[in-house]
Amino acid sequence: MRIGVDLGGTTVKAALCMEDGSIVQKKSVPTRKGDPDGLCADMKRLALELCSGNGIRPETVSGIGIGVPGSLDKQNCRLIFGTNLGMNNVCFGEVFRPEFVCGVRLENDANCAAIGEAAAGAARQARSMVMLTLGTGVGGGIVIDGKLYAGCNDIAGELGHMVIRQGGEPCNCGRRGCLEAYASASALVRFAERALSAGRESLLSAQRGRLNAKMICDAVDAGDVLAQELFAEYCENLSCGLANVINIFQPECIVLGGGLAGYGKKLLEPLRRLTDAQTFRSDRKNTEIRLAALGNDAGLIGAAVL
Amino acid sequence: MRIGVDLGGTTVKAALCMEDGSIVQKKSVPTRKGDPDGLCADMKRLALELCSGNGIRPETVSGIGIGVPGSLDKQNCRLIFGTNLGMNNVCFGEVFRPEFVCGVRLENDANCAAIGEAAAGAARQARSMVMLTLGTGVGGGIVIDGKLYAGCNDIAGELGHMVIRQGGEPCNCGRRGCLEAYASASALVRFAERALSAGRESLLSAQRGRLNAKMICDAVDAGDVLAQELFAEYCENLSCGLANVINIFQPECIVLGGGLAGYGKKLLEPLRRLTDAQTFRSDRKNTEIRLAALGNDAGLIGAAVL
Repeated sequence: MRIGVDLGGTTVKAALCMEDGSIVQKKSVPTRKGDPDGLCADMKRLALELCSGNGIRPETVSGIGIGVPGSLDKQNCRLIFGTNLGMNNVCFGEVFRPEFVCGVRLENDANCAAIGEAAAGAARQARSMVMLTLGTGVGGGIVIDGKLYAGCNDIAGELGHMVIRQGGEPCNCGRRGCLEAYASASALVRFAERALSAGRESLLSAQRGRLNAKMICDAVDAGDVLAQELFAEYCENLSCGLANVINIFQPECIVLGGGLAGYGKKLLEPLRRLTDAQTFRSDRKNTEIRLAALGNDAGLIGAAVL
Repeated sequence: MRIGVDLGGTTVKAALCMEDGSIVQKKSVPTRKGDPDGLCADMKRLALELCSGNGIRPETVSGIGIGVPGSLDKQNCRLIFGTNLGMNNVCFGEVFRPEFVCGVRLENDANCAAIGEAAAGAARQARSMVMLTLGTGVGGGIVIDGKLYAGCNDIAGELGHMVIRQGGEPCNCGRRGCLEAYASASALVRFAERALSAGRESLLSAQRGRLNAKMICDAVDAGDVLAQELFAEYCENLSCGLANVINIFQPECIVLGGGLAGYGKKLLEPLRRLTDAQTFRSDRKNTEIRLAALGNDAGLIGAAVL
């Protein structure tokens, strides 16, 4: 048995999993932001409850993995900067002792989602896969031969911070024109708010100032012209990033996760069409673009099988 | 002993190499463009001469590799499209028989250069490296754990065809705004010719219509304002691509080869400065940008050790 923990900005989720990643039971509590001691106590409590509720002795758990949004020192199991958790410089290595005796591994949350989808989700049979999560940001994870590709310093895979429009929209990372600044859910919302501020008419006007990506997708479905324009541009921008990923990696599949992947086929079909037209193709085998299969559980499962 | 062949548009080079890639002897002949039988006969003759000249029996050669500019079917040792060689659909698997009995492997020329630099050149100690060749195009090669990364269909690594300016300069691949359209030697020349056509004054005016990258670098050294502007823009564009590569791969090193790498420190220093400012950095280890160490032999050595 393994335990996976998904440390999100709003919720701490934990799951007891089989060795292959399938979930036996999961539990969650709200994240105690800015309170590292409280957060660590919650994580341990959840892990102990999952064990006792399923007749598992904690000392028999073979591994615990934690998916964290932030920059990490994986070797020392330490969160360096965790802006979304309101805490920096927290060490997670000893949190589960003395009851649990197994090792604890820390991983970036987008990488956990990639590992989860590769182990038990949409990329289950693939030898190489790239995951992109389309949420507040654009997270990336690269799995080659079943192993997370982490680069020489464990921070590789920042596909959202690949510039596709040099000198374009400012990005949180300090560059301009990153994929994240065009293809995150937040970017779609930002462009919509900007268009409304510029006086464009739309069904979305009523929701101005509190828009989210779901509302924009709903307006596309309702035939709203502005929403359709914005969504078409969104697909154009995202397909540029996907085509870059394919020309570089030619992975067996690209898996799209995060909030916007919930738009399903209506996202997938235009993306596939636009991307195919921009990539080097083989007469033998080509990258398939798929939607994530594990939904919000990808990170949890990925953390468990780390 | 191994044999490497570098099939260029102008010259066919062949080398007898030790198992570690060090060259014992090399020979070359002009490329018989558009004459596949003649070309194959030349390759075999060079290989036989290298053996007899060094007292090596052909049947003891352990491997032959061929670096080719074009699209390949590696599994069947077949060149699919070889525009620069003036031939398509040529099979190289049986060329060296019956004298040689070892296997023959085919690889893209930029990948051969990457393998050569990783095995015996600037990236010798590195576990992960990315090679970019700055010539007529921008070639890319990715080596992870000493192995070429080829993707699911053997055509990965097209780093030159990563769009950095969506909707920008047209590229030979059909997209607009590819790194190749800004960071190849040809791109630098194209921008210079365009500026001269627009009436800009420059030392380069005398060479209008027959410019090459070396002339532009010389004009930078001579203090020519236009050349300096163009070179600064070139570095800005290339550094955008390098920063993308680092954010994605975080390789131990990036090796720059091809004609423009001959400009040495004067290219490397501004590139390092510009790239550092755009990348995610670790307090532990970061990517080093280096110049190729094997010059024109990289492809030959890479082919030998395939």
